[in-house]
Amino acid sequence: DLARACAELFTTGSLAGKRVVITAGPTREAIDPVRYVSNHSSGKMGYALAQACIEAGARVTLISGPVHLPTPDRVHRLNVNSALDMLAASGKAVDAGCDVFIATAAVADYRPVSVAEHKIKKAGDAMTIELVRNPDIVATMAARADRPFVVGFAAETQNVEAYALSKLRDKKLDMIACNDVSRQDIGFQSDDNAMVIFWNGGSRRLDKAPKTFIARELVSLISQHFSQ
Amino acid sequence: DLARACAELFTTGSLAGKRVVITAGPTREAIDPVRYVSNHSSGKMGYALAQACIEAGARVTLISGPVHLPTPDRVHRLNVNSALDMLAASGKAVDAGCDVFIATAAVADYRPVSVAEHKIKKAGDAMTIELVRNPDIVATMAARADRPFVVGFAAETQNVEAYALSKLRDKKLDMIACNDVSRQDIGFQSDDNAMVIFWNGGSRRLDKAPKTFIARELVSLISQHFSQ
Repeated sequence: DLARACAELFTTGSLAGKRVVITAGPTREAIDPVRYVSNHSSGKMGYALAQACIEAGARVTLISGPVHLPTPDRVHRLNVNSALDMLAASGKAVDAGCDVFIATAAVADYRPVSVAEHKIKKAGDAMTIELVRNPDIVATMAARADRPFVVGFAAETQNVEAYALSKLRDKKLDMIACNDVSRQDIGFQSDDNAMVIFWNGGSRRLDKAPKTFIARELVSLISQHFSQ
Repeated sequence: DLARACAELFTTGSLAGKRVVITAGPTREAIDPVRYVSNHSSGKMGYALAQACIEAGARVTLISGPVHLPTPDRVHRLNVNSALDMLAASGKAVDAGCDVFIATAAVADYRPVSVAEHKIKKAGDAMTIELVRNPDIVATMAARADRPFVVGFAAETQNVEAYALSKLRDKKLDMIACNDVSRQDIGFQSDDNAMVIFWNGGSRRLDKAPKTFIARELVSLISQHFSQ
């Protein structure tokens, strides 16, 4: 539209004209019409990154799980629920043209094998949910022949750095941002965050700061490495 | 405080001076520090009921699972996460004095047998979660010797009326409000609702209307039957 076209005319940011796709929030994996398995995630980090990418001049598609956040101005937001929905939306968004893919979403690693059509009635003192592995969205995007610059996130509670480095390598990411979710003062619902960012051959520690600030620093790092 | 004392002086509502305890929202049952099992519930019906009870002159304690809603004026809100937390808070609130207990919360029927201290690493294509039955909060309150007037809610997707009547009897409730969550246009995140309310010897259908309106009608029914 006109406002967007005007805004882009004056764009001189570090990601000017680049197409960025960001996943954010949790996914919900249905057990039946009322029950689901999910992960803690407010979506704040992903939304702050969407805002920071807009400020840096990018065109941003935000693929969002269920969160309670307003959509930043000029961001194109697509709402999804499950990991399979998020994978499909991510594939389409990258098909449509994507320079940088940033996967902040807390995707459920597993989903129930089958979804009951009706609410499962209580029966007995025990219940077992059989789960099956969900596809790895960020690794799927990084494995494409036409791969964008791919940034992953890791939320670990122990051996944070070791897991992050193995994810960087195994998933063939260009960059990974890693926060320690066992820290009570940051992450999840918090407005603050702190992280260590790794790439092939380097790392950068971002100390505790508002997520809006962390997002701008991360976008700055992405634009430096993306243009190399 | 003073504002509350003043407000109570002028209270002439149908629940004037009565102590009402309401549970609302979903519960979250932790699998590990990042994953959980939950139910769809916006909490809107419970919060609308809290507001309607205040308008009717009651003193209201609202025991709320994780939702994104503002606390109505003069409502005493207690935040909880799991079903066990909600049971403990409900027991304390009834111990402190309760005339009417309204259980709108979408309590998880089952919780994981154990909660992993650290995030469970992905291992293999399948995963099984063993669950154990949660206590029945509304039935526990209705079984007390000093039981208040107890109102339950039922969210069913089939045989709505039959399930509601058996819950009324089996859990020894005074009243049960029953909505059909398979209807796409009401329930969960919706601002509207429609329900059938059953008590021993009668029923009343409330057609689709804003939850605030439904809440006032339900409070009116409760006050009629409570005073009998």
